[in-house]
Amino acid sequence: MLIRVYYEDTDCGGIVYHSSYFNFCERARSEMFFQKGLSPVLPNGHFVAKKIEADYILSAKLGDELEVLTELLEIRAASFVLLQTIFKGNQKIFELKITLAYITFEGRPQKIVSDVKELIESLFCS
Amino acid sequence: MLIRVYYEDTDCGGIVYHSSYFNFCERARSEMFFQKGLSPVLPNGHFVAKKIEADYILSAKLGDELEVLTELLEIRAASFVLLQTIFKGNQKIFELKITLAYITFEGRPQKIVSDVKELIESLFCS
Amino acid sequence: MLIRVYYEDTDCGGIVYHSSYFNFCERARSEMFFQKGLSPVLPNGHFVAKKIEADYILSAKLGDELEVLTELLEIRAASFVLLQTIFKGNQKIFELKITLAYITFEGRPQKIVSDVKELIESLFCS
Amino acid sequence: MLIRVYYEDTDCGGIVYHSSYFNFCERARSEMFFQKGLSPVLPNGHFVAKKIEADYILSAKLGDELEVLTELLEIRAASFVLLQTIFKGNQKIFELKITLAYITFEGRPQKIVSDVKELIESLFCS
Repeated sequence: MLIRVYYEDTDCGGIVYHSSYFNFCERARSEMFFQKGLSPVLPNGHFVAKKIEADYILSAKLGDELEVLTELLEIRAASFVLLQTIFKGNQKIFELKITLAYITFEGRPQKIVSDVKELIESLFCS
Repeated sequence: MLIRVYYEDTDCGGIVYHSSYFNFCERARSEMFFQKGLSPVLPNGHFVAKKIEADYILSAKLGDELEVLTELLEIRAASFVLLQTIFKGNQKIFELKITLAYITFEGRPQKIVSDVKELIESLFCS
Repeated sequence: MLIRVYYEDTDCGGIVYHSSYFNFCERARSEMFFQKGLSPVLPNGHFVAKKIEADYILSAKLGDELEVLTELLEIRAASFVLLQTIFKGNQKIFELKITLAYITFEGRPQKIVSDVKELIESLFCS
Repeated sequence: MLIRVYYEDTDCGGIVYHSSYFNFCERARSEMFFQKGLSPVLPNGHFVAKKIEADYILSAKLGDELEVLTELLEIRAASFVLLQTIFKGNQKIFELKITLAYITFEGRPQKIVSDVKELIESLFCS
């Protein structure tokens, strides 16, 4: 997943605004569904961020081309954990460990049933 | 409606990003509902932007305190027109004329019935 | 210029937030510089929005693939006018007429000198 | 620091977009400078996010009024750590531990000298 940095992603400090990296990582997650003709909104529920750990290593600026790599770390009963790394060229500039919970459309946590588990594994392990 | 400019509203040009002014104006519109204990999501529908004309007069920057003034220009059969002006101190810096259409939750235009008309008039004319 | 709609571009009305379309158009403008190895920040100045006229024709939603087409309408002494149209498939969903002023890094309007004029023409007319 | 949730903060999942909480916390940090007539851009440098740990406890939605509380946890040689907690009424809905590095305008880490240390303590400890 390649991401170009545009004006909207930067702030008056001259570099990418700190929360924009979370948007870039979310694009990469959703795009994995879209690329297979699927939606991150599943028939019986969807995913929300539950826990985030992020490290800012180097900054990015207007016009930079970034690459987001996504790796599945763990699937639990009702959530899963991804490691997402953003590179500028071959330099790692940002790293995110994010726990995503599977919830109903009413917002309640729900068990990751086997077909959802298989979907997550097929999207994020290949 | 007072708006403070934060980092997220600026870009690497050092000033407020051009589309952030539309967000500021939207906050002012929604806040008029919230201040009366209401929601901009009405029981039978809500409002979407249909047409925009905007003039950028002066720029704003991090930390500026802006004021948004909102005036009702016209109510039509299925839409209404607002004039929203942003001031920094007593200098006008941005002006927006926005046409908002009243639509159903399925996205179809619908007639502005009399109680919705009265609501719009009471919110935006006082 | 192809744009995918992600969660960040939508709002709780279920469709793309009205100001996100301006971001999409800005990406298309900047990308034309980046594609030629250039930056929209020129050696002696850059561009800011001066005037906007926009029509919302149809809405877009999560996962949609949009295309932004950009056409140069006019170059004036210190500004130029673009027509940017967003399509979903072969349906026009949004149209923007935007006047961009050429300003110094101190924020003052400046004349579009001949090499800047040629650059604008080469980027937006091909 | 009170924050109202507007359309721009939500996504098509119907709740506040996950990265908007970081914007809310940044507003609270900057506002502490602005309230004292200061800017988060100091004469010799400014602050950037270095590390983030965040927990999403409950979701927020359009129109909610949130409160951000900010507490200084630690000042190190070139960075400091804040705990920022977001409440909806008396329910904690989000918690952020953020490490902010003090950098030069060229982007290099720099020592937090004594007057900057005193400023941080005076802003975030009262």
